[in-house]
Amino acid sequence: MTHYLSAERVAEIIQKRGIGACITGVASYINQDFLRWNSFDKCARVANHSDVGVIELMPIADDKSYAFKYVNGHPSNYRFNLPTVMAFGVLADVETGVPELVSELTLTTAIRTAAMSAVAARALARDNCKSMAIIGNGAQSDFQALAFHYLLGVDTFHLYDIDSAATDKLEANLARFGVTTKRFSSAKEAVKGVDIITTVTADKTNATIITPDMVEPGMHINGVGGDCPGKTEIHGDVLRMGPVFCEFEPQSRIEGDMQQMPADFPVTELWTVLAGKVAGRTSEAQVTIFDSVGFALEDYSALRFMRDVALEMGLGETLSLIPAMDNPKNLFGFIGEDVAQTVANGATAGPTSAATSVTSARSTPAFVV
Amino acid sequence: MTHYLSAERVAEIIQKRGIGACITGVASYINQDFLRWNSFDKCARVANHSDVGVIELMPIADDKSYAFKYVNGHPSNYRFNLPTVMAFGVLADVETGVPELVSELTLTTAIRTAAMSAVAARALARDNCKSMAIIGNGAQSDFQALAFHYLLGVDTFHLYDIDSAATDKLEANLARFGVTTKRFSSAKEAVKGVDIITTVTADKTNATIITPDMVEPGMHINGVGGDCPGKTEIHGDVLRMGPVFCEFEPQSRIEGDMQQMPADFPVTELWTVLAGKVAGRTSEAQVTIFDSVGFALEDYSALRFMRDVALEMGLGETLSLIPAMDNPKNLFGFIGEDVAQTVANGATAGPTSAATSVTSARSTPAFVV
Repeated sequence: MTHYLSAERVAEIIQKRGIGACITGVASYINQDFLRWNSFDKCARVANHSDVGVIELMPIADDKSYAFKYVNGHPSNYRFNLPTVMAFGVLADVETGVPELVSELTLTTAIRTAAMSAVAARALARDNCKSMAIIGNGAQSDFQALAFHYLLGVDTFHLYDIDSAATDKLEANLARFGVTTKRFSSAKEAVKGVDIITTVTADKTNATIITPDMVEPGMHINGVGGDCPGKTEIHGDVLRMGPVFCEFEPQSRIEGDMQQMPADFPVTELWTVLAGKVAGRTSEAQVTIFDSVGFALEDYSALRFMRDVALEMGLGETLSLIPAMDNPKNLFGFIGEDVAQTVANGATAGPTSAATSVTSARSTPAFVV
Repeated sequence: MTHYLSAERVAEIIQKRGIGACITGVASYINQDFLRWNSFDKCARVANHSDVGVIELMPIADDKSYAFKYVNGHPSNYRFNLPTVMAFGVLADVETGVPELVSELTLTTAIRTAAMSAVAARALARDNCKSMAIIGNGAQSDFQALAFHYLLGVDTFHLYDIDSAATDKLEANLARFGVTTKRFSSAKEAVKGVDIITTVTADKTNATIITPDMVEPGMHINGVGGDCPGKTEIHGDVLRMGPVFCEFEPQSRIEGDMQQMPADFPVTELWTVLAGKVAGRTSEAQVTIFDSVGFALEDYSALRFMRDVALEMGLGETLSLIPAMDNPKNLFGFIGEDVAQTVANGATAGPTSAATSVTSARSTPAFVV
């Protein structure tokens, strides 16, 4: 039996445990796992692109657990009243290959992406950052704001989106958390004077939302939305203003804002900073840039967190994805004793005929763990 | 909502529709899809190897549907009373990225692998084949026998396995189908005089189960078990005895029995034969070899077949993998109105504390489609 966390169940976990606790918890798991960077079998994600979007698989494993995420990116999904990004994922046992957990990852990805941004900013931004501009006020933006609030103490948010209804939504959601929000009518005005700039826009284009004239000394730029080939947010000259940090270099060079830069453009993998091997920021006036694209290890961490909390709270259902057999070499026997009779009939009658009625006593249990 | 087919539900479909009809139906879908070969965005599967096994993801897409399979290969799983191969998979909509179907694929993989073998043999073996040796009598072998029975009319099976209990199981299962089985005490004896040799062993080693002295003129060799790096069954000199056919060349060169051969060893992709572009067998005396490894397109076909039959029969449950929202930009709102209060408490109390109790009215429906 595979443990199953639906979207409703993860929402319940976040409600009951608290979103601050969940973001903090996922950040802590990410930090732990990034410190074990070389224990993981890593690859760039595998993408199938279409004219309107992308569907990706993101696998990773250490010697104990395997994880993968299914995730799409369809910027025009609002036309169908669907999210731009939807995801689910799996944790499996490396020793046997058994899938142990299937979980929604739409909510969880929003939390882990925000937690990753905050973990990076803790290592790269100036101390005592208090203000952040958020350019792009869609589904991910609330989580970004709260991650920086809970992990760095940021309490003032400058908001801008081409869709003012998105900003309405973000303002309303953040109002309940005792933070200050200010609305602006352009990205340029929104970023003026802030400590941190977060870009989290959805358009699949080579945009230049942040240009060099908008960047002030000491700023940290958290570039989240430029995350697949043909989708960038930050002008190349901004990337040249300060050291650039990324998650997994082979993937970020293809998918990040860095895709604009030559192959030898210098970049530092964040785990080396977290592990104390490489310096992050080296002066107060330096501009630092985290070119985030989202890496499989973050989903591994987030899946571990959700599983651990769900087990602790006794939440979740089960799925019967794998046949349970007395003799695993007798997979055929799982179909049932009477299959030969049906088979003969079915085959004679042809594939589209009505089948002989065989009553099955099997059922799929769905009970709380 | 995502349509969900558990292992029990797929067993019920096979029971009710008949295994002959299911194998024939999947073969027909595979044949249709292979004729559209150039419509698909294809890649070799993505594997994470460990000391004891492998976990793989197999994605593929055309402009309408995306499919992927999760599958493991753990030859020592019998120690835990678990199958060597376990799988599940997903069909998704390319236009939106919505996962439409989650299905077990352990039973379904056995059917599609057998159907693929029979589709290849129909194109490559001599006409009127009546006898087949099956070397390796584990979980996949029953399905192989029945596919060749229903699609080619093979009615005599020569069986051999190092584990005689596996042969007992296969004999007992096949006895119900009115076919003839004969047991042998070596692979060499089992293959003598047959029309077709099927190898379907589980050991992850470079084995040489079939050597040139065992191969007679006109035989067709269906090599199924040599399907990942370091796992082969057929001596390299056997591959030199006749034309070799494969599914997707870039994957087969890495994973198939062909991994033993130089990079320029000639091989023909099967779809070109099915499409009438290239000749298959060119004489009665020729030896033909299908170096099967299992390709994502076969799972795409099998998932389509199971979905279509399940919908026709009204079978399956649903999963709530993706949050259903009135406003997809307000993902945060899906967590619930009262999240701010909980959040503040949870964050203050820290990630391991007991959370404020918030009763959720949400539930995960699981009803028959």
